[in-house]
Amino acid sequence: MRQLFELCGNDRDIRFSPFAWRALFCLAHKGLEFERTPLMFLEKDPYEASGSTALPVLKDGETWVTDSLDIAKYLEATYQDNPLFGSDVALGQAQFLNNFFNQVVVGGLFPMLAADVFDLLSDDNGAYFRKTREPNFGGATLEQMRDKRDSMVDAYRASLNPIRATLGSQNFLCGDAPAWADYAAMGGFMWAKVVSKFDPIANDDPINAWRERMLDLFDGLGRSAKTV
Amino acid sequence: MRQLFELCGNDRDIRFSPFAWRALFCLAHKGLEFERTPLMFLEKDPYEASGSTALPVLKDGETWVTDSLDIAKYLEATYQDNPLFGSDVALGQAQFLNNFFNQVVVGGLFPMLAADVFDLLSDDNGAYFRKTREPNFGGATLEQMRDKRDSMVDAYRASLNPIRATLGSQNFLCGDAPAWADYAAMGGFMWAKVVSKFDPIANDDPINAWRERMLDLFDGLGRSAKTV
Repeated sequence: MRQLFELCGNDRDIRFSPFAWRALFCLAHKGLEFERTPLMFLEKDPYEASGSTALPVLKDGETWVTDSLDIAKYLEATYQDNPLFGSDVALGQAQFLNNFFNQVVVGGLFPMLAADVFDLLSDDNGAYFRKTREPNFGGATLEQMRDKRDSMVDAYRASLNPIRATLGSQNFLCGDAPAWADYAAMGGFMWAKVVSKFDPIANDDPINAWRERMLDLFDGLGRSAKTV
Repeated sequence: MRQLFELCGNDRDIRFSPFAWRALFCLAHKGLEFERTPLMFLEKDPYEASGSTALPVLKDGETWVTDSLDIAKYLEATYQDNPLFGSDVALGQAQFLNNFFNQVVVGGLFPMLAADVFDLLSDDNGAYFRKTREPNFGGATLEQMRDKRDSMVDAYRASLNPIRATLGSQNFLCGDAPAWADYAAMGGFMWAKVVSKFDPIANDDPINAWRERMLDLFDGLGRSAKTV
């Protein structure tokens, strides 16, 4: 029995975590069966045995794995078919890519989308989210950051230039077919799609065409996600 | 006979191209013998048969290869030992990494260092360089950009955060040992080291410690480069 514990909103069908989306795509890429267990921020008991206090967490039989990159590495080491990396060099490169996707793709979205996440949460989970996330904004509230997002989106789009240039010469970040790096980047855009009507990507951007290809994968795993 | 054609200054021992340095490190990584042929910007005849008008160019027997990433891919496909990538996924990821290194690492250095490159060139090569590069600066001269570099270096260093974070958890960008991505990033820093006394990296930056490790590789290939 394989089980992915992932964040959800007050509506448990709203599954928004960018890191959970990475793990979901990796499980699907490996062709593995799994159940999804939605949990709110403050519901930490079900995965206490993992030793982690943050989601996503994978339980595979009796093995607990935490952190989305470590989940990908675990799947690659345990299930050889359909490589997510395929070489030690690719695994090394993945550490850099993970930092870029976390800092630039997800980190750049965060101030623009955090208030939309807050709006999806119950009172106690929302209070927890505000208390832990708002201090990142130098005195501004989640809502004040959201109010500024139209003025932030151009710089955000420019920060994605290395992704944009890559998708000008190949269909996926990993080449002719998607693999871990595509899922890691797409996690951020799934998060945006689920929590907000605000689209950080322009329609005519090659990133949008790639995003459409990603939404089609695995019988529309991403496309069928419930959104606000 | 293997021959790498690379840019040089008016002093032919000054070899500064970031893209040539990538190719040099890749050749050394593969353990291959090669000769270095230094050429000034306007000396294009010796590699006309390659079909390229830009360096670096590799001639391996009767095979001409142009573009530093294509040179790395050619070496990987032709010489299996000591992988630079090791998997198709790593090759796919390399396209993104190449764009990041070109746009952020090299592209970010360019306005800060272009005047220092100019100073190394003969009159006719310098005139060519100024005419082709200066239009990138929105009306400013190479020297005006150099005069502003102290005010640009903090943003440059911040743009390297994904590299910095990676080197906090592993010794090289490719993991425990260097491979193509390390050489691709290091090319930019070799360029800076050769053309300028201005150091874009702070002494206490983990990127500096990595750079020192890179300079030690292959009997000090980078460390022994002639600098201004």
